[in-house]
Amino acid sequence: MLTLYSFGPGANSMKPMATLYEKGLDFKIRFVDPSKFEQHSDWFKKINPRGQVPALDHDGKIVVESTVICEYLEDAFPDQNPLRPADPYMRAQMRVWTKWVDEYFCWCVSTIGWHYGIRPIAQSMTDEAFEEHLKNVPIPEQKVKWRHARNGFPQELLDEEFRKVRVSAQRLEDTLSRQDYLLESGFSLADICNFAIANGLDRPGGWFNDFVNEKDTPGLIAWLKRVKERPAIAKMFAEAKREELLKDR
Amino acid sequence: MLTLYSFGPGANSMKPMATLYEKGLDFKIRFVDPSKFEQHSDWFKKINPRGQVPALDHDGKIVVESTVICEYLEDAFPDQNPLRPADPYMRAQMRVWTKWVDEYFCWCVSTIGWHYGIRPIAQSMTDEAFEEHLKNVPIPEQKVKWRHARNGFPQELLDEEFRKVRVSAQRLEDTLSRQDYLLESGFSLADICNFAIANGLDRPGGWFNDFVNEKDTPGLIAWLKRVKERPAIAKMFAEAKREELLKDR
Repeated sequence: MLTLYSFGPGANSMKPMATLYEKGLDFKIRFVDPSKFEQHSDWFKKINPRGQVPALDHDGKIVVESTVICEYLEDAFPDQNPLRPADPYMRAQMRVWTKWVDEYFCWCVSTIGWHYGIRPIAQSMTDEAFEEHLKNVPIPEQKVKWRHARNGFPQELLDEEFRKVRVSAQRLEDTLSRQDYLLESGFSLADICNFAIANGLDRPGGWFNDFVNEKDTPGLIAWLKRVKERPAIAKMFAEAKREELLKDR
Repeated sequence: MLTLYSFGPGANSMKPMATLYEKGLDFKIRFVDPSKFEQHSDWFKKINPRGQVPALDHDGKIVVESTVICEYLEDAFPDQNPLRPADPYMRAQMRVWTKWVDEYFCWCVSTIGWHYGIRPIAQSMTDEAFEEHLKNVPIPEQKVKWRHARNGFPQELLDEEFRKVRVSAQRLEDTLSRQDYLLESGFSLADICNFAIANGLDRPGGWFNDFVNEKDTPGLIAWLKRVKERPAIAKMFAEAKREELLKDR
Protein backbone atom coordinates (compact mmCIF):
# COMPACT_ATOMS: atom_id res chain seq x y z
CA MET A 1 0.00 0.00 0.00
CA LEU A 2 1.28 3.44 -0.99
CA THR A 3 -0.04 6.51 0.83
CA LEU A 4 1.22 9.97 -0.01
CA TYR A 5 0.89 12.63 2.67
CA SER A 6 0.72 15.81 0.70
CA PHE A 7 -0.52 19.31 0.11
CA GLY A 8 -2.25 19.91 -3.22
CA PRO A 9 -0.53 19.43 -6.62
CA GLY A 10 2.04 22.21 -6.40
CA ALA A 11 5.68 22.76 -5.46
CA ASN A 12 7.43 19.93 -3.59
CA SER A 13 4.15 18.10 -2.99
CA MET A 14 3.68 17.78 -6.73
CA LYS A 15 6.93 15.92 -7.34
CA PRO A 16 6.03 12.50 -5.89
CA MET A 17 2.35 12.99 -6.77
CA ALA A 18 3.14 13.47 -10.46
CA THR A 19 5.58 10.56 -10.26
CA LEU A 20 2.89 8.27 -8.84
CA TYR A 21 0.44 9.34 -11.55
CA GLU A 22 3.00 9.03 -14.36
CA LYS A 23 4.05 5.57 -13.22
CA GLY A 24 0.41 4.51 -13.01
CA LEU A 25 0.86 3.06 -9.55
CA ASP A 26 -2.01 2.24 -7.21
CA PHE A 27 -1.90 4.75 -4.35
CA LYS A 28 -3.94 7.02 -2.19
CA ILE A 29 -3.37 10.57 -1.09
CA ARG A 30 -3.91 11.74 2.46
CA PHE A 31 -4.37 15.48 2.02
CA VAL A 32 -2.52 17.44 4.71
CA ASP A 33 -4.31 20.75 5.11
CA PRO A 34 -1.94 23.71 5.37
CA SER A 35 -4.79 26.07 6.24
CA LYS A 36 -5.09 24.09 9.49
CA PHE A 37 -1.28 23.76 9.80
CA GLU A 38 -1.76 20.00 9.74
CA GLN A 39 1.89 19.61 8.69
CA HIS A 40 2.85 20.79 12.18
CA SER A 41 0.27 18.71 14.01
CA ASP A 42 1.33 16.04 16.45
CA TRP A 43 -0.13 13.24 14.35
CA PHE A 44 1.80 14.31 11.27
CA LYS A 45 5.06 14.90 13.14
CA LYS A 46 4.87 11.26 14.17
CA ILE A 47 5.16 10.52 10.44
CA ASN A 48 7.74 13.21 9.65
CA PRO A 49 9.31 14.81 12.72
CA ARG A 50 10.45 17.73 10.54
CA GLY A 51 6.81 18.67 9.97
CA GLN A 52 7.17 18.78 6.20
CA VAL A 53 5.16 17.34 3.36
CA PRO A 54 5.37 15.31 1.22
CA ALA A 55 5.94 11.99 2.97
CA LEU A 56 5.34 8.56 1.52
CA ASP A 57 4.14 5.56 3.51
CA HIS A 58 4.98 2.34 1.67
CA ASP A 59 3.73 -0.66 3.61
CA GLY A 60 4.51 1.13 6.85
CA LYS A 61 7.93 2.46 5.86
CA ILE A 62 8.15 6.24 5.67
CA VAL A 63 10.17 7.98 2.97
CA VAL A 64 10.63 11.76 3.15
CA GLU A 65 12.10 14.55 0.98
CA SER A 66 10.28 15.03 -2.31
CA THR A 67 13.15 14.26 -4.68
CA VAL A 68 14.22 11.26 -2.61
CA ILE A 69 10.65 9.92 -2.80
CA CYS A 70 10.70 10.23 -6.60
CA GLU A 71 13.94 8.26 -6.82
CA TYR A 72 12.58 5.76 -4.30
CA LEU A 73 9.53 5.08 -6.46
CA GLU A 74 11.88 4.40 -9.38
CA ASP A 75 14.01 2.05 -7.26
CA ALA A 76 10.98 0.24 -5.83
CA PHE A 77 9.07 0.01 -9.13
CA PRO A 78 11.80 0.12 -11.77
CA ASP A 79 9.87 -1.57 -14.55
CA GLN A 80 6.62 0.36 -14.31
CA ASN A 81 6.82 3.35 -16.68
CA PRO A 82 10.41 4.30 -15.84
CA LEU A 83 11.00 8.02 -15.35
CA ARG A 84 14.76 7.77 -15.14
CA PRO A 85 16.82 7.19 -18.27
CA ALA A 86 18.60 3.83 -18.36
CA ASP A 87 21.86 5.36 -19.58
CA PRO A 88 24.10 6.34 -16.62
CA TYR A 89 25.36 9.53 -18.26
CA MET A 90 21.85 10.71 -19.08
CA ARG A 91 20.73 9.78 -15.57
CA ALA A 92 23.51 11.99 -14.18
CA GLN A 93 22.20 14.88 -16.29
CA MET A 94 18.77 14.21 -14.80
CA ARG A 95 20.25 14.50 -11.31
CA VAL A 96 22.02 17.74 -12.12
CA TRP A 97 18.55 19.10 -12.96
CA THR A 98 16.77 17.71 -9.89
CA LYS A 99 19.60 18.83 -7.60
CA TRP A 100 19.49 22.32 -9.09
CA VAL A 101 15.75 22.52 -8.36
CA ASP A 102 16.32 21.57 -4.73
CA GLU A 103 19.29 23.86 -4.14
CA TYR A 104 18.41 26.92 -6.20
CA PHE A 105 15.20 27.09 -8.23
CA CYS A 106 12.70 26.01 -5.56
CA TRP A 107 14.05 28.44 -2.94
CA CYS A 108 13.74 31.66 -4.90
CA VAL A 109 10.25 30.80 -6.12
CA SER A 110 9.30 29.77 -2.57
CA THR A 111 10.35 33.09 -1.04
CA ILE A 112 8.20 35.02 -3.52
CA GLY A 113 5.32 32.64 -2.85
CA TRP A 114 5.67 33.17 0.89
CA HIS A 115 5.90 36.93 0.42
CA TYR A 116 2.62 37.06 -1.49
CA GLY A 117 0.81 33.94 -0.30
CA ILE A 118 1.83 33.25 3.30
CA ARG A 119 2.39 36.83 4.51
CA PRO A 120 -1.36 37.63 4.65
CA ILE A 121 -1.90 34.52 6.77
CA ALA A 122 1.05 35.26 9.07
CA GLN A 123 -0.12 38.85 9.46
CA SER A 124 -3.73 37.91 10.17
CA MET A 125 -2.79 36.15 13.42
CA THR A 126 -2.68 37.76 16.84
CA ASP A 127 0.80 37.93 18.40
CA GLU A 128 -0.21 35.20 20.80
CA ALA A 129 -1.59 32.88 18.12
CA PHE A 130 1.51 33.48 15.98
CA GLU A 131 3.94 32.60 18.78
CA GLU A 132 1.82 29.57 19.64
CA HIS A 133 1.98 28.52 15.98
CA LEU A 134 5.78 28.90 15.86
CA LYS A 135 6.16 26.56 18.80
CA ASN A 136 4.83 23.77 16.57
CA VAL A 137 7.29 24.43 13.73
CA PRO A 138 10.21 22.05 14.27
CA ILE A 139 12.79 23.48 11.81
CA PRO A 140 14.57 26.66 13.03
CA GLU A 141 14.97 27.99 9.47
CA GLN A 142 11.21 27.62 8.95
CA LYS A 143 10.53 29.66 12.07
CA VAL A 144 12.72 32.41 10.63
CA LYS A 145 10.79 32.24 7.36
CA TRP A 146 7.49 32.59 9.23
CA ARG A 147 8.83 35.65 11.07
CA HIS A 148 9.96 37.14 7.78
CA ALA A 149 6.49 36.48 6.34
CA ARG A 150 4.89 38.24 9.29
CA ASN A 151 7.30 41.19 9.46
CA GLY A 152 7.85 41.43 5.72
CA PHE A 153 10.77 40.02 3.74
CA PRO A 154 13.58 42.58 3.28
CA GLN A 155 13.30 44.22 -0.16
CA GLU A 156 16.94 43.40 -0.87
CA LEU A 157 16.16 39.70 -0.39
CA LEU A 158 13.08 39.88 -2.60
CA ASP A 159 15.08 41.59 -5.35
CA GLU A 160 17.75 38.90 -5.16
CA GLU A 161 15.14 36.12 -5.26
CA PHE A 162 13.47 37.68 -8.31
CA ARG A 163 16.88 37.80 -9.97
CA LYS A 164 17.31 34.10 -9.28
CA VAL A 165 13.88 33.21 -10.69
CA ARG A 166 14.84 35.13 -13.82
CA VAL A 167 18.14 33.18 -14.06
CA SER A 168 16.18 29.96 -13.53
CA ALA A 169 13.63 30.73 -16.24
CA GLN A 170 16.44 31.51 -18.66
CA ARG A 171 18.25 28.30 -17.77
CA LEU A 172 15.10 26.29 -18.54
CA GLU A 173 14.55 28.26 -21.74
CA ASP A 174 18.09 27.60 -22.95
CA THR A 175 17.34 23.88 -23.02
CA LEU A 176 13.62 23.95 -23.82
CA SER A 177 14.11 26.18 -26.85
CA ARG A 178 16.03 23.26 -28.35
CA GLN A 179 14.09 20.19 -27.25
CA ASP A 180 10.71 19.00 -25.97
CA TYR A 181 11.90 17.83 -22.55
CA LEU A 182 14.85 18.66 -20.32
CA LEU A 183 16.74 15.53 -21.32
CA GLU A 184 17.31 14.54 -24.92
CA SER A 185 16.18 11.05 -23.96
CA GLY A 186 12.65 12.29 -23.22
CA PHE A 187 10.33 12.93 -20.26
CA SER A 188 11.92 12.16 -16.88
CA LEU A 189 12.09 13.13 -13.23
CA ALA A 190 14.02 16.21 -14.43
CA ASP A 191 10.77 17.46 -15.99
CA ILE A 192 8.59 16.47 -13.05
CA CYS A 193 10.79 18.18 -10.46
CA ASN A 194 11.19 21.34 -12.52
CA PHE A 195 7.54 21.47 -13.58
CA ALA A 196 6.48 21.23 -9.93
CA ILE A 197 8.21 24.55 -9.30
CA ALA A 198 7.80 26.21 -12.72
CA ASN A 199 4.07 25.61 -13.14
CA GLY A 200 2.33 28.96 -12.85
CA LEU A 201 5.38 31.14 -13.54
CA ASP A 202 3.65 32.14 -16.78
CA ARG A 203 0.34 33.14 -15.17
CA PRO A 204 -0.88 36.26 -17.00
CA GLY A 205 -0.64 39.21 -14.66
CA GLY A 206 1.34 37.03 -12.24
CA TRP A 207 4.53 37.79 -10.33
CA PHE A 208 6.88 36.52 -13.01
CA ASN A 209 4.91 37.23 -16.16
CA ASP A 210 7.15 40.12 -17.23
CA PHE A 211 9.97 37.67 -17.92
CA VAL A 212 8.13 34.34 -18.37
CA ASN A 213 5.94 34.85 -21.42
CA GLU A 214 5.46 33.88 -25.07
CA LYS A 215 7.97 36.43 -26.28
CA ASP A 216 10.87 35.93 -23.85
CA THR A 217 10.57 32.22 -23.02
CA PRO A 218 8.59 30.48 -25.79
CA GLY A 219 10.30 27.14 -25.18
CA LEU A 220 9.48 27.20 -21.47
CA ILE A 221 5.86 28.19 -22.18
CA ALA A 222 5.44 25.38 -24.71
CA TRP A 223 6.94 22.87 -22.26
CA LEU A 224 4.61 23.95 -19.43
CA LYS A 225 1.68 23.34 -21.79
CA ARG A 226 3.19 20.06 -23.03
CA VAL A 227 3.62 18.71 -19.51
CA LYS A 228 0.13 19.83 -18.42
CA GLU A 229 -1.38 18.02 -21.41
CA ARG A 230 0.24 14.69 -20.56
CA PRO A 231 -2.64 12.34 -19.64
CA ALA A 232 -1.23 11.46 -16.22
CA ILE A 233 -0.57 15.09 -15.29
CA ALA A 234 -4.01 16.19 -16.51
CA LYS A 235 -5.53 13.39 -14.43
CA MET A 236 -3.58 14.53 -11.38
CA PHE A 237 -4.83 18.09 -11.71
CA ALA A 238 -8.40 16.85 -12.24
CA GLU A 239 -8.40 14.55 -9.21
CA ALA A 240 -6.12 15.91 -6.52
CA LYS A 241 -7.54 18.03 -3.76
CA ARG A 242 -6.09 21.54 -3.58
CA GLU A 243 -5.47 23.74 -0.61
CA GLU A 244 -7.97 26.56 -0.14
CA LEU A 245 -5.14 28.66 1.24
CA LEU A 246 -3.78 29.59 -2.12
CA LYS A 247 -6.92 29.58 -4.21
CA ASP A 248 -6.71 33.32 -4.90
CA ARG A 249 -3.12 33.22 -6.11
CA MET B 1 39.30 6.11 -19.16
CA LEU B 2 38.27 7.93 -15.99
CA THR B 3 39.89 11.27 -15.16
CA LEU B 4 38.87 13.22 -12.08
CA TYR B 5 39.51 16.96 -12.10
CA SER B 6 39.85 17.78 -8.46
CA PHE B 7 41.35 19.73 -5.61
CA GLY B 8 43.02 17.65 -2.89
CA PRO B 9 41.15 15.07 -0.77
CA GLY B 10 38.82 17.39 1.13
CA ALA B 11 35.26 18.73 0.96
CA ASN B 12 33.37 18.19 -2.30
CA SER B 13 36.50 17.07 -4.13
CA MET B 14 36.83 14.17 -1.74
CA LYS B 15 33.42 12.68 -2.49
CA PRO B 16 34.10 11.22 -5.97
CA MET B 17 37.77 10.66 -5.13
CA ALA B 18 36.90 8.45 -2.15
CA THR B 19 34.24 6.73 -4.26
CA LEU B 20 36.79 5.90 -6.97
CA TYR B 21 39.24 4.55 -4.38
CA GLU B 22 36.57 2.56 -2.53
CA LYS B 23 35.29 1.02 -5.74
CA GLY B 24 38.84 0.14 -6.76
CA LEU B 25 38.39 1.58 -10.23
CA ASP B 26 41.24 2.44 -12.55
CA PHE B 27 41.43 6.23 -12.82
CA LYS B 28 43.72 9.20 -12.79
CA ILE B 29 43.46 12.51 -11.03
CA ARG B 30 44.22 15.80 -12.74
CA PHE B 31 44.96 18.09 -9.79
CA VAL B 32 43.34 21.50 -10.25
CA ASP B 33 45.41 23.98 -8.26
CA PRO B 34 43.29 26.43 -6.29
CA SER B 35 46.35 28.49 -5.32
CA LYS B 36 46.60 29.36 -9.03
CA PHE B 37 42.79 29.65 -9.37
CA GLU B 38 42.96 26.92 -12.00
CA GLN B 39 39.25 26.19 -11.40
CA HIS B 40 38.50 29.56 -13.00
CA SER B 41 40.97 29.18 -15.86
CA ASP B 42 39.78 29.10 -19.44
CA TRP B 43 40.95 25.53 -19.96
CA PHE B 44 38.99 24.27 -16.96
CA LYS B 45 35.87 26.27 -17.77
CA LYS B 46 35.78 24.40 -21.07
CA ILE B 47 35.32 21.28 -18.94
CA ASN B 48 32.94 22.83 -16.40
CA PRO B 49 31.61 26.24 -17.40
CA ARG B 50 30.64 26.85 -13.77
CA GLY B 51 34.33 26.81 -12.81
CA GLN B 52 33.83 24.27 -10.05
CA VAL B 53 35.65 21.10 -9.12
CA PRO B 54 35.20 18.18 -9.03
CA ALA B 55 34.42 17.12 -12.59
CA LEU B 56 34.72 13.62 -14.01
CA ASP B 57 35.73 12.83 -17.59
CA HIS B 58 34.58 9.34 -18.51
CA ASP B 59 35.65 8.50 -22.05
CA GLY B 60 35.12 12.11 -23.07
CA LYS B 61 31.79 12.60 -21.31
CA ILE B 62 31.87 15.15 -18.50
CA VAL B 63 29.89 14.64 -15.30
CA VAL B 64 29.75 17.46 -12.73
CA GLU B 65 28.44 18.00 -9.19
CA SER B 66 30.18 15.87 -6.59
CA THR B 67 27.18 13.88 -5.36
CA VAL B 68 25.94 13.32 -8.90
CA ILE B 69 29.39 11.97 -9.83
CA CYS B 70 29.24 9.51 -6.91
CA GLU B 71 25.84 8.21 -8.05
CA TYR B 72 27.09 8.13 -11.64
CA LEU B 73 30.00 5.88 -10.69
CA GLU B 74 27.50 3.53 -9.03
CA ASP B 75 25.27 3.54 -12.12
CA ALA B 76 28.20 3.04 -14.51
CA PHE B 77 29.98 0.38 -12.40
CA PRO B 78 27.17 -1.17 -10.37
CA ASP B 79 28.87 -4.48 -9.66
CA GLN B 80 32.27 -3.21 -8.57
CA ASN B 81 32.25 -2.77 -4.77
CA PRO B 82 28.77 -1.21 -4.59
CA LEU B 83 28.48 1.80 -2.29
CA ARG B 84 24.70 2.06 -2.49
CA PRO B 85 22.51 -0.41 -0.61
CA ALA B 86 20.47 -2.68 -2.86
CA ASP B 87 17.31 -2.20 -0.81
CA PRO B 88 15.25 0.75 -2.14
CA TYR B 89 14.20 1.94 1.32
CA MET B 90 17.77 1.91 2.61
CA ARG B 91 18.91 3.64 -0.56
CA ALA B 92 16.37 6.39 0.11
CA GLN B 93 17.83 6.84 3.60
CA MET B 94 21.25 7.14 1.95
CA ARG B 95 19.92 9.93 -0.27
CA VAL B 96 18.37 11.77 2.67
CA TRP B 97 21.91 11.87 4.10
CA THR B 98 23.67 12.92 0.88
CA LYS B 99 21.02 15.55 0.14
CA TRP B 100 21.37 16.94 3.65
CA VAL B 101 25.12 17.30 3.17
CA ASP B 102 24.59 19.24 -0.05
CA GLU B 103 21.83 21.50 1.25
CA TYR B 104 22.87 22.13 4.84
CA PHE B 105 26.02 20.57 6.28
CA CYS B 106 28.50 21.50 3.54
CA TRP B 107 27.45 25.16 3.44
CA CYS B 108 27.94 26.02 7.09
CA VAL B 109 31.31 24.28 7.22
CA SER B 110 32.28 25.98 3.97
CA THR B 111 31.55 29.48 5.26
CA ILE B 112 33.76 28.93 8.31
CA GLY B 113 36.46 27.48 6.04
CA TRP B 114 36.28 30.54 3.81
CA HIS B 115 36.34 32.86 6.80
CA TYR B 116 39.56 31.37 8.14
CA GLY B 117 41.16 29.85 5.04
CA ILE B 118 40.21 32.01 2.05
CA ARG B 119 39.99 35.41 3.73
CA PRO B 120 43.79 35.80 4.07
CA ILE B 121 44.15 35.05 0.35
CA ALA B 122 41.34 37.42 -0.66
CA GLN B 123 42.80 40.14 1.55
CA SER B 124 46.33 39.70 0.26
CA MET B 125 45.37 40.83 -3.25
CA THR B 126 45.51 44.38 -4.54
CA ASP B 127 42.11 45.89 -5.41
CA GLU B 128 42.96 45.57 -9.07
CA ALA B 129 44.05 41.93 -8.83
CA PHE B 130 40.96 41.08 -6.80
CA GLU B 131 38.56 42.64 -9.34
CA GLU B 132 40.45 40.94 -12.14
CA HIS B 133 40.10 37.63 -10.27
CA LEU B 134 36.34 38.11 -9.79
CA LYS B 135 35.87 38.56 -13.54
CA ASN B 136 36.90 34.92 -13.96
CA VAL B 137 34.42 33.57 -11.40
CA PRO B 138 31.33 32.50 -13.36
CA ILE B 139 28.80 31.98 -10.53
CA PRO B 140 27.32 35.22 -9.09
CA GLU B 141 26.90 33.69 -5.61
CA GLN B 142 30.60 32.75 -5.62
CA LYS B 143 31.54 36.33 -6.42
CA VAL B 144 29.52 37.44 -3.38
CA LYS B 145 31.33 34.86 -1.27
CA TRP B 146 34.71 36.16 -2.45
CA ARG B 147 33.67 39.72 -1.55
CA HIS B 148 32.56 38.53 1.87
CA ALA B 149 35.91 36.79 2.31
CA ARG B 150 37.74 39.98 1.40
CA ASN B 151 35.58 42.35 3.45
CA GLY B 152 34.91 39.93 6.29
CA PHE B 153 31.84 37.77 6.78
CA PRO B 154 29.22 39.45 9.01
CA GLN B 155 29.52 38.16 12.59
CA GLU B 156 25.79 37.37 12.61
CA LEU B 157 26.30 35.03 9.65
CA LEU B 158 29.32 33.36 11.24
CA ASP B 159 27.37 32.78 14.46
CA GLU B 160 24.50 31.23 12.51
CA GLU B 161 26.88 29.00 10.55
CA PHE B 162 28.58 27.82 13.74
CA ARG B 163 25.12 27.01 15.11
CA LYS B 164 24.44 24.91 12.03
CA VAL B 165 27.73 23.03 12.28
CA ARG B 166 26.83 22.24 15.88
CA VAL B 167 23.39 20.98 14.79
CA SER B 168 25.09 18.92 12.09
CA ALA B 169 27.61 17.35 14.45
CA GLN B 170 24.79 16.42 16.81
CA ARG B 171 22.77 14.92 13.98
CA LEU B 172 25.73 12.73 13.01
CA GLU B 173 26.33 11.81 16.65
CA ASP B 174 22.70 10.77 17.14
CA THR B 175 23.15 8.04 14.54
CA LEU B 176 26.85 7.23 15.05
CA SER B 177 26.44 6.70 18.77
CA ARG B 178 24.24 3.72 17.83
CA GLN B 179 25.97 2.19 14.81
CA ASP B 180 29.30 1.99 12.96
CA TYR B 181 28.12 3.67 9.77
CA LEU B 182 25.31 6.08 8.87
CA LEU B 183 23.15 3.30 7.43
CA GLU B 184 22.39 0.13 9.29
CA SER B 185 23.25 -1.74 6.11
CA GLY B 186 26.90 -0.62 6.34
CA PHE B 187 29.37 1.71 4.63
CA SER B 188 27.84 3.69 1.75
CA LEU B 189 27.87 6.97 -0.15
CA ALA B 190 26.15 8.43 2.93
CA ASP B 191 29.43 7.95 4.83
CA ILE B 192 31.61 9.17 1.98
CA CYS B 193 29.65 12.37 1.42
CA ASN B 194 29.44 13.17 5.12
CA PHE B 195 33.03 12.22 5.86
CA ALA B 196 34.20 14.54 3.06
CA ILE B 197 32.76 17.47 5.02
CA ALA B 198 33.17 16.19 8.58
CA ASN B 199 36.83 15.19 8.35
CA GLY B 200 38.84 17.62 10.45
CA LEU B 201 35.94 18.88 12.58
CA ASP B 202 37.66 17.17 15.52
CA ARG B 203 41.09 18.74 14.97
CA PRO B 204 42.45 19.56 18.43
CA GLY B 205 42.52 23.32 18.86
CA GLY B 206 40.48 23.67 15.66
CA TRP B 207 37.43 25.78 14.97
CA PHE B 208 34.91 23.17 16.04
CA ASN B 209 36.81 21.30 18.71
CA ASP B 210 34.77 22.75 21.57
CA PHE B 211 31.75 20.75 20.43
CA VAL B 212 33.30 17.96 18.35
CA ASN B 213 35.44 15.99 20.78
CA GLU B 214 35.70 12.69 22.66
CA LYS B 215 33.35 13.84 25.39
CA ASP B 216 30.51 15.43 23.42
CA THR B 217 30.56 13.37 20.23
CA PRO B 218 32.30 10.04 20.88
CA GLY B 219 30.34 8.26 18.13
CA LEU B 220 31.30 10.85 15.54
CA ILE B 221 34.95 10.77 16.62
CA ALA B 222 35.06 6.96 16.41
CA TRP B 223 33.46 7.05 12.97
CA LEU B 224 35.97 9.62 11.65
CA LYS B 225 38.75 7.29 12.78
CA ARG B 226 36.97 4.22 11.41
CA VAL B 227 36.53 5.79 7.97
CA LYS B 228 40.13 7.08 7.87
CA GLU B 229 41.40 3.58 8.65
CA ARG B 230 39.56 1.96 5.76
CA PRO B 231 42.27 0.74 3.37
CA ALA B 232 40.90 2.63 0.37
CA ILE B 233 40.58 5.89 2.28
CA ALA B 234 44.05 5.53 3.82
CA LYS B 235 45.41 4.90 0.32
CA MET B 236 43.66 8.02 -0.97
CA PHE B 237 45.18 10.20 1.74
CA ALA B 238 48.61 8.67 1.13
CA GLU B 239 48.53 9.19 -2.63
CA ALA B 240 46.43 12.22 -3.52
CA LYS B 241 48.13 15.56 -4.00
CA ARG B 242 46.97 18.27 -1.60
CA GLU B 243 46.64 21.98 -2.14
CA GLU B 244 49.35 24.10 -0.57
CA LEU B 245 46.70 26.75 0.04
CA LEU B 246 45.28 25.10 3.11
CA LYS B 247 48.36 23.34 4.45
CA ASP B 248 48.37 25.43 7.62
CA ARG B 249 44.74 24.71 8.51
